[in-house]
Amino acid sequence: MGNTIGEIFRLTTFGESHGPAIGGVVDGMPAGVKIDLDAVQHELDRRRPGQSAIVTGRNEGDRVKMLSGLYEGVTTGTPIGFVIENENQRSGDYDNMRDVFRPSHADYTYAQKYGIRDHRGGGRSSARETAARVVAGALARQVLSLSGINVYAYTSQVGDIELDRDYRKYDPAKIEDNIVRCPDAVVAKRMIELVECVKRDGDTIGGVITGVATGVPVGLGEPVFGKLHAALGAAMLGINAAKGFEYGLGFDFARCRGSEVIDNFKIGSDGSIDIENNNSGGIQGGISNGKDIYFRVAFKPVATLLRDVETVTAGGEAVALKARGRHDPCVLPRAVPIVEAMTAIVLLDFLLQNRCSRI
Amino acid sequence: MGNTIGEIFRLTTFGESHGPAIGGVVDGMPAGVKIDLDAVQHELDRRRPGQSAIVTGRNEGDRVKMLSGLYEGVTTGTPIGFVIENENQRSGDYDNMRDVFRPSHADYTYAQKYGIRDHRGGGRSSARETAARVVAGALARQVLSLSGINVYAYTSQVGDIELDRDYRKYDPAKIEDNIVRCPDAVVAKRMIELVECVKRDGDTIGGVITGVATGVPVGLGEPVFGKLHAALGAAMLGINAAKGFEYGLGFDFARCRGSEVIDNFKIGSDGSIDIENNNSGGIQGGISNGKDIYFRVAFKPVATLLRDVETVTAGGEAVALKARGRHDPCVLPRAVPIVEAMTAIVLLDFLLQNRCSRI
Amino acid sequence: MGNTIGEIFRLTTFGESHGPAIGGVVDGMPAGVKIDLDAVQHELDRRRPGQSAIVTGRNEGDRVKMLSGLYEGVTTGTPIGFVIENENQRSGDYDNMRDVFRPSHADYTYAQKYGIRDHRGGGRSSARETAARVVAGALARQVLSLSGINVYAYTSQVGDIELDRDYRKYDPAKIEDNIVRCPDAVVAKRMIELVECVKRDGDTIGGVITGVATGVPVGLGEPVFGKLHAALGAAMLGINAAKGFEYGLGFDFARCRGSEVIDNFKIGSDGSIDIENNNSGGIQGGISNGKDIYFRVAFKPVATLLRDVETVTAGGEAVALKARGRHDPCVLPRAVPIVEAMTAIVLLDFLLQNRCSRI
Amino acid sequence: MGNTIGEIFRLTTFGESHGPAIGGVVDGMPAGVKIDLDAVQHELDRRRPGQSAIVTGRNEGDRVKMLSGLYEGVTTGTPIGFVIENENQRSGDYDNMRDVFRPSHADYTYAQKYGIRDHRGGGRSSARETAARVVAGALARQVLSLSGINVYAYTSQVGDIELDRDYRKYDPAKIEDNIVRCPDAVVAKRMIELVECVKRDGDTIGGVITGVATGVPVGLGEPVFGKLHAALGAAMLGINAAKGFEYGLGFDFARCRGSEVIDNFKIGSDGSIDIENNNSGGIQGGISNGKDIYFRVAFKPVATLLRDVETVTAGGEAVALKARGRHDPCVLPRAVPIVEAMTAIVLLDFLLQNRCSRI
Repeated sequence: MGNTIGEIFRLTTFGESHGPAIGGVVDGMPAGVKIDLDAVQHELDRRRPGQSAIVTGRNEGDRVKMLSGLYEGVTTGTPIGFVIENENQRSGDYDNMRDVFRPSHADYTYAQKYGIRDHRGGGRSSARETAARVVAGALARQVLSLSGINVYAYTSQVGDIELDRDYRKYDPAKIEDNIVRCPDAVVAKRMIELVECVKRDGDTIGGVITGVATGVPVGLGEPVFGKLHAALGAAMLGINAAKGFEYGLGFDFARCRGSEVIDNFKIGSDGSIDIENNNSGGIQGGISNGKDIYFRVAFKPVATLLRDVETVTAGGEAVALKARGRHDPCVLPRAVPIVEAMTAIVLLDFLLQNRCSRI
Repeated sequence: MGNTIGEIFRLTTFGESHGPAIGGVVDGMPAGVKIDLDAVQHELDRRRPGQSAIVTGRNEGDRVKMLSGLYEGVTTGTPIGFVIENENQRSGDYDNMRDVFRPSHADYTYAQKYGIRDHRGGGRSSARETAARVVAGALARQVLSLSGINVYAYTSQVGDIELDRDYRKYDPAKIEDNIVRCPDAVVAKRMIELVECVKRDGDTIGGVITGVATGVPVGLGEPVFGKLHAALGAAMLGINAAKGFEYGLGFDFARCRGSEVIDNFKIGSDGSIDIENNNSGGIQGGISNGKDIYFRVAFKPVATLLRDVETVTAGGEAVALKARGRHDPCVLPRAVPIVEAMTAIVLLDFLLQNRCSRI
Repeated sequence: MGNTIGEIFRLTTFGESHGPAIGGVVDGMPAGVKIDLDAVQHELDRRRPGQSAIVTGRNEGDRVKMLSGLYEGVTTGTPIGFVIENENQRSGDYDNMRDVFRPSHADYTYAQKYGIRDHRGGGRSSARETAARVVAGALARQVLSLSGINVYAYTSQVGDIELDRDYRKYDPAKIEDNIVRCPDAVVAKRMIELVECVKRDGDTIGGVITGVATGVPVGLGEPVFGKLHAALGAAMLGINAAKGFEYGLGFDFARCRGSEVIDNFKIGSDGSIDIENNNSGGIQGGISNGKDIYFRVAFKPVATLLRDVETVTAGGEAVALKARGRHDPCVLPRAVPIVEAMTAIVLLDFLLQNRCSRI
Repeated sequence: MGNTIGEIFRLTTFGESHGPAIGGVVDGMPAGVKIDLDAVQHELDRRRPGQSAIVTGRNEGDRVKMLSGLYEGVTTGTPIGFVIENENQRSGDYDNMRDVFRPSHADYTYAQKYGIRDHRGGGRSSARETAARVVAGALARQVLSLSGINVYAYTSQVGDIELDRDYRKYDPAKIEDNIVRCPDAVVAKRMIELVECVKRDGDTIGGVITGVATGVPVGLGEPVFGKLHAALGAAMLGINAAKGFEYGLGFDFARCRGSEVIDNFKIGSDGSIDIENNNSGGIQGGISNGKDIYFRVAFKPVATLLRDVETVTAGGEAVALKARGRHDPCVLPRAVPIVEAMTAIVLLDFLLQNRCSRI
């Protein structure tokens, strides 16, 4: 239910922003995989707060500690429990929010649903929880790479500044060349300037992340309710601040005629069947067709502004609130590794599920 | 996994386009609900082929037969099994497709995944399967209405013709006034003309459906992997031909600054807490906040064109294919009740899940 | 939840004793299996009422009708929906039970849990529902046999008459030689006489069924909560009237010292590792070890007596009740194919699950 | 799948006997429950090794550390992550077992299933993992007690020494009066002597634990595959060394006639409906009937003998093995709190599930 994702490769996470630790359990990891723990930590570092001038200043080491499931560095098929300690909490920053509902945050809905909430740093609704997903994603990624599957994501839009929709125009090797994680250096510079600008204003800005998976074999996806893109969509929409998901041409399909956008089959020079165009985004009928999978995820601007906001208390009193915590003016740069992680988690789960599709 | 959706209120469907019947099992229906079977059949009729000049001519009665779970018209808490017989199959229409992969259809991916496929009318990948979802949705709806929850959807875009994004401008009572299911009569007329035009061309056209749920109480949603909008997104993306999902301002959020789009709290005249704007779309932190939930679903143009298409056979030969079946030039009108059904299924499931959130 | 069993190979059943039909959906059946429908019907016939003098006289044809998931007799990987019509209902037999709770039946608990119940023939709690399990089990069996796995069960105890505990002493080919399904002709004769005797008395009698699976490969079982014997136990305990489950030496282990019952490893003549004794019953640490799996299931005597019983009405009135329906004096003979079916369902599910245990 | 139990109240465990820590995540805990952490630790202490002369000498503090899900001592509805560090490992004790399969242990099956295993102390198959279940059970128990539900278990048989089957003859307040956890002081003394005797012999002994739940309301259980006793059975059979489960009269039912064992309804002095005898064990048709639930769990003797055992290596060589670790001569005393914990986990899950059974 709430805190577990996956059917066979399954991640369960726990932890609040200001509790002793966050962490998770990865179940269903196939046995026999040699794990590169440095690579796992590397992904965490990409998501880490405090990594650049355009992200939150909360300075967490975010060291993951593996507690089980590995023996002499190799997966044993038993669950991998792990924790990341919360070190740099400044819970005092949130004292003024104990009874206040921050607008467009989850404070109000958690309070109403559960009748109680940990107000410190958003508690469970904090994006800090996604660090556990990055750990699981980094593990999944290492399994996927054994099958030749690669996953990457990049910032393709910040405010009005956007890249061309065609992901093939960009070199994934350049994503990490700048702090906004946009593979086009010129556009990246403009994005960074925009984020710095809104940050100076105590404001925040939305954007879009494009995700891509290459090397995915034909056959992943479990119709009718386990379609691959539906699972990817749910995984992306489950990321904090995500508000939209589309794959292939997505919403642009709405304007098109069938004759304009059909993905024709063709016979390759070696006699094999291939697919032209790939407007479908690598998935047809909910099942991967062997072409690149690509999709876009819309993120709203962070709701925490470093300026006075009018809001209300739990008691029903109007108050002015000025955030004192350390916050991201734009979630995109740090969300890139999260999009990648969730993609890897979903793909590995479906790769395993697909082992049972035939006798 | 593949053919079941839901945690507590659960639907499992079965059936192929040209087999003896399609159907499903609804499990987790609460006991004690008086069911209006005519209302269920009415929803099926809204999805039925052959209902108007702009949808497929396949003429199915689509009569649902309930097999269990009801006693003297009232739900007993036991599973509701139901079947809809396939009557108007013309499987011969598909003889020429036995070994041919229709472009942008699921023929190729099913064949590759399972090593076998029922080629008649798309087999399991046919949208005919969604009739079973409409039955379950119609049942769910009747339970939701007991809690004051109402669900509706309408065609908000066909090709380049679109309504204003603000659903509050349209009267849901007018949706059924025209065959394209658009609540604005003038725009509907233009949409219908466009569909007729592409139909004459043997072509097809995409579009967007807007879905709305009113009366949803605060508290539905199971963070972090069971967020309400993630479940809605997965349910919508699981509808045939759906390619994108967004809720609230969706992708438009990407262009916005936080200060422009925050949903402020205010104190109502009666002292209660309310939320202004509702740019969030009725969900915050994955949990409903008591405001209307609204979202948009993008549909691609149907891939079956009534004109020659170049494609390939399973054996790797290039062939020309001209569809002979009866097909929709635009899925939108018939997808409206499916969007409503899937929305109702998700909301009822979460309404029940939420019963366990507190002691 | 309630009406679905399995993780990958999943059965969902529906239907009441006196509704229009019972049936189910088998999801997760691997594609590419040629199905022998006569063999499926044969299993149903073994469970069928009216088959002999010592079982209920309700005379159901119990013809299963497959609605989906098969194409030209081969599984397609899509769900297999099926129905069995209820033909020989005599609901009038139950008119006197509308408001009466039969002792040791589910009438009272269903009424209390759901606030409503279909009193005719026990409604959902009728063992008639198990016919759907037999269908699914017969399908599973055909897949298992492709892997060399065979499943059988037999009546090993009726009242005080019991076989030796060692299943290896009995020839499974003789199980169907008599109507009580006991592989020892002499003991079977005594069992039948006992059943006839209690039937004459309007009474009923309990017993034990022994189940055996041969050819199970090493490795099936998902510790720690998906242990193979725990899943088998739950499946057996889920059969109507089952009250106990043990595997290997079972409760007899309680009296033993470790040194008496350890299953020693030995080196076979071909140098391979084998296990002596098999007191463990083919499962160690929740995982099959390649030896025969064997277990025993205890059944209580049927609670419906053909004599006056003192009981109460829903209104709290004491009444005398004399059953008028047609009932089994002993469930064992008809429960044998159900035990086999549930065993096959569990084993196939775990065989598929195990495909994901290693990279 | 493997490492998660429950539908709504769900426990996922992780950890190996000799890794850094074991632990788990409890999801689905209702919000608003004040937790007594000392009571949780108390249950752990009852399961702790080294607590008496008749259990293993491994001396673990077994301090549980809660990492999330509690705010100011009250549950928040978010998952409760927890860890218990492994302190007193003497992995060197197991060096001689790296390539040896201990008879009747899980060494061989894990090695075959996963192709790799952590041989130290049984790795994941060690009963040490059950400490995590005791934590979850202790949490569940506190919720159950708010509904008047109480759970207890006791040692009812060790070898040939057994208590009367009728649990009502024993006072649960006396269970903790002796180290074997048997509520009859005289029988307890004999049991302890027997355990000491087998321990001196380097041998081990089996037994039976009786579990009881009082105050369970009518209505818990989700037929047909979620019957309450089937879930209890699976939970008990999932405990290390468990080999059998029966409830109510269990296997004794096999010898009985229906007329001897029917649980008659009667009208109480206050006009309410009650049930006589309770041979059914508090569950009818898979649903609790308001009477006490009672059941018995058979445990085999521990397979680790402190004497030479003939066995084989992974390489297929015959070797003599003498265990050097610290082991229980009889698991019963320490299994009592585990039986209680698993009972509480199942009952709370079903109590929550039952909230959804009616409109």
